[in-house]
Amino acid sequence: MSASESDSTRRRRARKAGASGMPGSGDATVGDAGLLRGRFVGGVHPALDRINRSFSVDRRMWREDIAGSTAHARMLGEQGILPAKAVRRIHKGLAQVAREFEAGTFVDHPEDEDIHMAVERRLTELIGEDGKRLHAGRSRNDQVATDMALYLHGARERLTRKVVDVQVALVALAARDGELVLPYYTHLQRAQPVLLGHVLLAWVEMLEDDRAGLAGPAGRDLCPLGAGAGTGTTFPLDRRATARELGFAGPTRNSLASVSSRREVTMAAATMATTATTLSRLGADLVLWCSREFGFARLGDAVSTGSSIMPQKRNPDGAELLRAKAVVVSSSLSRLLELQRGLPLGYSKDLQEDKPALFEAEDTLMDMLDVARAMLEDVSFDGAAMSAAVEDPRGYLLATEAADFLVRRGVSFREAHEAVGALVSAAEARGVGLADLPDEVLTAAHARFDGTLREVLTTGAALSARSIVGGTAPTAVRRELAAWKRRLGR
Amino acid sequence: MSASESDSTRRRRARKAGASGMPGSGDATVGDAGLLRGRFVGGVHPALDRINRSFSVDRRMWREDIAGSTAHARMLGEQGILPAKAVRRIHKGLAQVAREFEAGTFVDHPEDEDIHMAVERRLTELIGEDGKRLHAGRSRNDQVATDMALYLHGARERLTRKVVDVQVALVALAARDGELVLPYYTHLQRAQPVLLGHVLLAWVEMLEDDRAGLAGPAGRDLCPLGAGAGTGTTFPLDRRATARELGFAGPTRNSLASVSSRREVTMAAATMATTATTLSRLGADLVLWCSREFGFARLGDAVSTGSSIMPQKRNPDGAELLRAKAVVVSSSLSRLLELQRGLPLGYSKDLQEDKPALFEAEDTLMDMLDVARAMLEDVSFDGAAMSAAVEDPRGYLLATEAADFLVRRGVSFREAHEAVGALVSAAEARGVGLADLPDEVLTAAHARFDGTLREVLTTGAALSARSIVGGTAPTAVRRELAAWKRRLGR
Amino acid sequence: MSASESDSTRRRRARKAGASGMPGSGDATVGDAGLLRGRFVGGVHPALDRINRSFSVDRRMWREDIAGSTAHARMLGEQGILPAKAVRRIHKGLAQVAREFEAGTFVDHPEDEDIHMAVERRLTELIGEDGKRLHAGRSRNDQVATDMALYLHGARERLTRKVVDVQVALVALAARDGELVLPYYTHLQRAQPVLLGHVLLAWVEMLEDDRAGLAGPAGRDLCPLGAGAGTGTTFPLDRRATARELGFAGPTRNSLASVSSRREVTMAAATMATTATTLSRLGADLVLWCSREFGFARLGDAVSTGSSIMPQKRNPDGAELLRAKAVVVSSSLSRLLELQRGLPLGYSKDLQEDKPALFEAEDTLMDMLDVARAMLEDVSFDGAAMSAAVEDPRGYLLATEAADFLVRRGVSFREAHEAVGALVSAAEARGVGLADLPDEVLTAAHARFDGTLREVLTTGAALSARSIVGGTAPTAVRRELAAWKRRLGR
Amino acid sequence: MSASESDSTRRRRARKAGASGMPGSGDATVGDAGLLRGRFVGGVHPALDRINRSFSVDRRMWREDIAGSTAHARMLGEQGILPAKAVRRIHKGLAQVAREFEAGTFVDHPEDEDIHMAVERRLTELIGEDGKRLHAGRSRNDQVATDMALYLHGARERLTRKVVDVQVALVALAARDGELVLPYYTHLQRAQPVLLGHVLLAWVEMLEDDRAGLAGPAGRDLCPLGAGAGTGTTFPLDRRATARELGFAGPTRNSLASVSSRREVTMAAATMATTATTLSRLGADLVLWCSREFGFARLGDAVSTGSSIMPQKRNPDGAELLRAKAVVVSSSLSRLLELQRGLPLGYSKDLQEDKPALFEAEDTLMDMLDVARAMLEDVSFDGAAMSAAVEDPRGYLLATEAADFLVRRGVSFREAHEAVGALVSAAEARGVGLADLPDEVLTAAHARFDGTLREVLTTGAALSARSIVGGTAPTAVRRELAAWKRRLGR
Repeated sequence: MSASESDSTRRRRARKAGASGMPGSGDATVGDAGLLRGRFVGGVHPALDRINRSFSVDRRMWREDIAGSTAHARMLGEQGILPAKAVRRIHKGLAQVAREFEAGTFVDHPEDEDIHMAVERRLTELIGEDGKRLHAGRSRNDQVATDMALYLHGARERLTRKVVDVQVALVALAARDGELVLPYYTHLQRAQPVLLGHVLLAWVEMLEDDRAGLAGPAGRDLCPLGAGAGTGTTFPLDRRATARELGFAGPTRNSLASVSSRREVTMAAATMATTATTLSRLGADLVLWCSREFGFARLGDAVSTGSSIMPQKRNPDGAELLRAKAVVVSSSLSRLLELQRGLPLGYSKDLQEDKPALFEAEDTLMDMLDVARAMLEDVSFDGAAMSAAVEDPRGYLLATEAADFLVRRGVSFREAHEAVGALVSAAEARGVGLADLPDEVLTAAHARFDGTLREVLTTGAALSARSIVGGTAPTAVRRELAAWKRRLGR
Repeated sequence: MSASESDSTRRRRARKAGASGMPGSGDATVGDAGLLRGRFVGGVHPALDRINRSFSVDRRMWREDIAGSTAHARMLGEQGILPAKAVRRIHKGLAQVAREFEAGTFVDHPEDEDIHMAVERRLTELIGEDGKRLHAGRSRNDQVATDMALYLHGARERLTRKVVDVQVALVALAARDGELVLPYYTHLQRAQPVLLGHVLLAWVEMLEDDRAGLAGPAGRDLCPLGAGAGTGTTFPLDRRATARELGFAGPTRNSLASVSSRREVTMAAATMATTATTLSRLGADLVLWCSREFGFARLGDAVSTGSSIMPQKRNPDGAELLRAKAVVVSSSLSRLLELQRGLPLGYSKDLQEDKPALFEAEDTLMDMLDVARAMLEDVSFDGAAMSAAVEDPRGYLLATEAADFLVRRGVSFREAHEAVGALVSAAEARGVGLADLPDEVLTAAHARFDGTLREVLTTGAALSARSIVGGTAPTAVRRELAAWKRRLGR
Repeated sequence: MSASESDSTRRRRARKAGASGMPGSGDATVGDAGLLRGRFVGGVHPALDRINRSFSVDRRMWREDIAGSTAHARMLGEQGILPAKAVRRIHKGLAQVAREFEAGTFVDHPEDEDIHMAVERRLTELIGEDGKRLHAGRSRNDQVATDMALYLHGARERLTRKVVDVQVALVALAARDGELVLPYYTHLQRAQPVLLGHVLLAWVEMLEDDRAGLAGPAGRDLCPLGAGAGTGTTFPLDRRATARELGFAGPTRNSLASVSSRREVTMAAATMATTATTLSRLGADLVLWCSREFGFARLGDAVSTGSSIMPQKRNPDGAELLRAKAVVVSSSLSRLLELQRGLPLGYSKDLQEDKPALFEAEDTLMDMLDVARAMLEDVSFDGAAMSAAVEDPRGYLLATEAADFLVRRGVSFREAHEAVGALVSAAEARGVGLADLPDEVLTAAHARFDGTLREVLTTGAALSARSIVGGTAPTAVRRELAAWKRRLGR
Repeated sequence: MSASESDSTRRRRARKAGASGMPGSGDATVGDAGLLRGRFVGGVHPALDRINRSFSVDRRMWREDIAGSTAHARMLGEQGILPAKAVRRIHKGLAQVAREFEAGTFVDHPEDEDIHMAVERRLTELIGEDGKRLHAGRSRNDQVATDMALYLHGARERLTRKVVDVQVALVALAARDGELVLPYYTHLQRAQPVLLGHVLLAWVEMLEDDRAGLAGPAGRDLCPLGAGAGTGTTFPLDRRATARELGFAGPTRNSLASVSSRREVTMAAATMATTATTLSRLGADLVLWCSREFGFARLGDAVSTGSSIMPQKRNPDGAELLRAKAVVVSSSLSRLLELQRGLPLGYSKDLQEDKPALFEAEDTLMDMLDVARAMLEDVSFDGAAMSAAVEDPRGYLLATEAADFLVRRGVSFREAHEAVGALVSAAEARGVGLADLPDEVLTAAHARFDGTLREVLTTGAALSARSIVGGTAPTAVRRELAAWKRRLGR
């Protein structure tokens, strides 16, 4: 029984496994002892190595990892923990490692379990022993938390810039075609006339909320460096100095919370998810508008796709993918939340999986923003089709006008609503529009109706009447358009 | 073929269905014509009614709905849209409806599809025709968006208050037992000694981030009232006035965005989800600590549960449910995101489902906060068990001290790390702690080791040395504790 | 410090808490000692009670719980563990409890933590001491697993019956209007002509796959009763007998797996989720078809809803909710999976949350099936609108026919595809249909084109040519319709 | 306004965009016309290309795509649609393409949007014009559905093989150390003694249910080839022949359902998710067992990892990742369900995203199975630590025995449960085990207790008494072990 197995027996067995493959698995262990395997005999099992190694995922954080190490080394020097000469060598070495990543010449090594070990390994190759001094007063736990916090700074900037690009494209369309009139839909039923500019600026405004969310951190934006493995460190680090150099508002407080929390990452993913959801709705509308049934929009050739079998097709694949890809972003947020759920305080390996989740959300959203912009920069609108839909007498888009007409004549809204219901029924039965009904039918529906009703039953009147803040009246929409142009600097 | 079916045929058929049940379904339609069914013949199919009716869900928003209507009516009066007398009657009637909800005497009516229709129906019963005038210049689309925004104000307040209760309970424990020492774990392996107070304040701090997120709206907190069905309204509403009365920063801008967006609801759910996730981790730690194997904590009788078969059990059901219930909160967030995904701009019925999702998240989190507080107010800690775990010589919790010892003597961290690895192996082979190793073994592991190493190999020394900002040194923890006491006003 | 607190001190404190409210909480503990609280002092904290108590959720399993207890008691008698007289009394008592649940006269008691304790408590009230003997050789762990397995039997039957109702409604529509012709869409672009019957039977077939999944258990359908708390029991139970009486294929094997696994529940939820997803797509198509732009369908008054502001609206709320409610079903599946994730083997309280998740999925799907059927039983189709869409010369639905024409003349498919692309471009430029192009344009596009091409460029020809198995030719669709009628027994 | 823009203007604009970059975007369109872009002017926008192109994801289906094409070509020949010579050339060419993929020498081309176009493009390069004839009577819609169905065949086989590997490793451990005794836990509280073999075989059995689910298709396993774009095809294909050649039970029926449904993919992901969930629980138990507090298990060096800062650590990263990676698998299932939700019938581009979701689930689960097996093949158990936990007198694992003792003497279970509760309280107060209580305390707790109680209060007696089917008695466990050895062929 293995309980009684002595340490030496175990070691022999392990050594043998390392030499001849795991019993029954046929796999040889891989890698040398590695920086962290000092106490272990033999290499790591390939299956564990495969699931454990994160370098392919986290190598994209090389900038942040090197920035963190640079600041850490400088502070170690200033605090007298490392000699100035060592710090200079480390800085020189880190700069070289950065150049290699930048140029794509960085050569992976089987020992590179993650970006942190890869940078330190290469640094030590380049500058020798001093490279091994860098990790003093630090753990990968606070290091990775710092890298992620820095990474979020960059990701937020990249994403907000692209959101603005989409907003600019929408504003340009509103400037070009904003006075076209189309039906506003609720429940996908024609409801009321609306300016295309009003619709386009609705997207601009929803994206503005998303952009504002993406732009700022959800919390206090503090630097975890110095939290060590989770209890702090015995070295007299100057946490304020590193936080400052790295662009944070200050150092985090409680060291345990610092290495345990993934709240900021999660909330960043949440803002990505709402942005993706907004884009998914833009995609849904484009799919509808590009259908022959709606016929309101036509995507340019460069943003349309063909069919392998039906030569006539002009498919809005990009718009459909806005819909579909939003699932990936939302579900990355779910992954982040679930990964953390039920973990004891402190660091558990599970937390490593925050990176693929976040990066997938970011990459997907970046692509979505690019394709949204591309489509908006190459779409044309069919004003005649829109107009036909608005003016279709059987669409009854002006029924609300008739109700408001009565209310303005002192009738209660519910009574007015009911009277117009009767009017619509009468018009439907005759197959005509409301304005086509003879006076006697109007009066029969409600005594306060008369021929002057027809004055409000025009699309132009309905639009102009909605000049309230946020309304679709041309004056209101032009005002908003001007404001957005100023705001977006165009 | 039904395409050629005349309107009158259809009506006859529908009437018959209303009278004798749907063909083949055996169900009679229910309800009267209802406020909104004026144009339709017969009642609504019971299956549709069941899936469509939201009053059982949204009746909890009666306060917000009445507040919104009160402000709307006042403004209609001030703008001369309703006569002052009607407004007074409406206000008196709404106050009465509020009293009925408050007292639990509000009587539902089959017509009450949702809270909006229920309030208006009852108002009209109470004050007659003037009740029917209330909806002028308003749609359920902007009304429900306003109700939800108001509801979030209250929910945020309710939740943050309860988070503070949990923080207070944690601070009280830290004040009582904070100087107990237990192992800090990473990967559920003993890592380093830590003060219980440090652990408890880590929870306080993580909850503080959650609390801050819950406290403020994610966006600009604007009032949708006046957006109408989504295009504005033809009445000269004073949107600033209603926004002000209802406690918003101002009115929303684009009316389409106002009725389409659920971003604020979604982000509120996201902050609930991170809070629930934090609590799930507290629960996970309590489950571990209450196990006989850890033995660090014992929940009081009032917060423990028994077994139907094993009389000796003292189960931490509350802690387990913190873990499990967090799933519900996170998944409510997913529901909110998915509901919106791919919807065209404007209002679609799908959006109605935002309420059950949000309310379930809120209710679940409220329960979780209550049970977390209850457990923290009735838990005792076993200092002896904690101490035994820390002092267990085979736990090697002080290995980091030995490495730092070498670094302070000029050895590079990696070399030190490796040397201590050898030391641990040697100690494991002898079945002793690091401090029990003879000097020659120390020196063999690294030339810079000597007997003075033993001075740093005590729990007390390890703790005191971590006096850095955020560290676990008693002085640092006491400082933090004092700060939290001040902050939480205790 | 509480670590040194003696047991008696703790008890005194607890007793005091029970009497005067929890310290700082203002809440009194509730309930009596309860069946399971024998060893605990005082009642349970109200917060724990609220989150812990599951009776409001699991009371719906009263039939299953009583059936399980009835079988268990009979077997205890047959094995000589209980005297025959006690078994008779228990059976009589359980029958009475069942009648009370059936009649809605069962009175809850504060002690009723869950359905199991409620039934046993009431049984003991009714028959006295013998009620307390029922739980011999059983734990709530195997009892609840058995109840859930039985519950799934019923749920599967209820759901499959309703799926068949929807299929029957679809088949009736196919019989009534199946020969109408409408465009088949891919990417929401018109692709090819298709029979309405073909579309309707596609739904029937997709639902058939769902139905088959719902009908059968995902696994071996074994009875957990007798697994005890998870290690078996010391009583000589006849597990085969209870399994048989309860309608299972046999008893489960490993007792730990029996109380730990929720696989069957999870897979049941997965089949519910695919069914809900199918219905969500039916809903999406109905929303489109009911739009004025498509205009293919009109829902009857009883399954349409109105607007609070726009009197002309005829909203397909039921169809929208099919889309939205599917989110709830899918996310209940996610909840089930996440609840189990990372739980140690054995029973953890987290598993209790499987019931609200499953029941919500079931209830939601039941409502969805009802509303789908109601809409399908009250929808009319507009054959003229469908036909106009198919025959619209600018829709180019027959482009595939032209390509296939060339292939039949020996041209490679890719060359044919390209030639037809040119043909469509030429027709678009002239604003005509393919059949309207003069011969010379045909020949210019490809030498093998000639005037006989026009013979295949009719909707009728395109439909008839697709007589392959599964194709949309009228003959093929009629064959399928007949088969479905037979299969569904109509 | 663009509505009046003539086709030629649009083309010119597009051409310009193709030449000089999209207005405002700085991106040039990429690619040539491509196989499907015949009718479009210029290339595809790089942003659309990036989000649209799926070849990097679906190239792994080259075997299935080529198999499908091979069968399709043979059948085209047999039906006289292609000349035999063309079929021979196609077969030869496809074999060559397969060899290139196999050897890793297949060279991608910018035109290769997906695996289907890549194979056809290369085929045509290799054999010329005949390559362009392959797609007759087929669409990518039925082609990709067929590829996926074939892919599932292979994935199921790969996964079930690996599940068996894990089962074999568990059975080997049960054979080696199965008679060790450890506590069975519920709520992570010690409950009853159990054999390690019983625990290990519980995993085997839960995995067996997962394996059975993975092994078979969820539905009827039919071949979609011949469904064309969704309406069938005008060519006289022999769908039964291709279905047979490809190993399906037959062709699908309704062509629309064939290209629309992703049910089989979804259910495959569901079975992957339950398997991953089972493994996550194995991981959770290993993490606990490897903690110093439990101390039941020790992972070998090759499957342990070190710390970057704490030299003494032996982290069970693999076990933690089993917990974490299960999130990825479950959420891939959610992605699949959500992708389909609300899509109209027919093919939408959204469905393309089923592949990354499925493949990620499969790859993750494959890694999880590998690492689970690796850990199980290199774990040792500490029988002494297990035994100490079982025999710990304050653990009261034998309380159930005392209750059953009373029941066997005619006491009702509830009365017995209460009496043992008192016994445990008495023993706790004295700090002893139940068997250490003097006779008078026993009798005070219940009159039917006497000294013979101590006979059942031994671990051995408790285990042996559970010889019921599925119980943990050594005889029962040995029987099960033998059965599993036979079944797994070891």
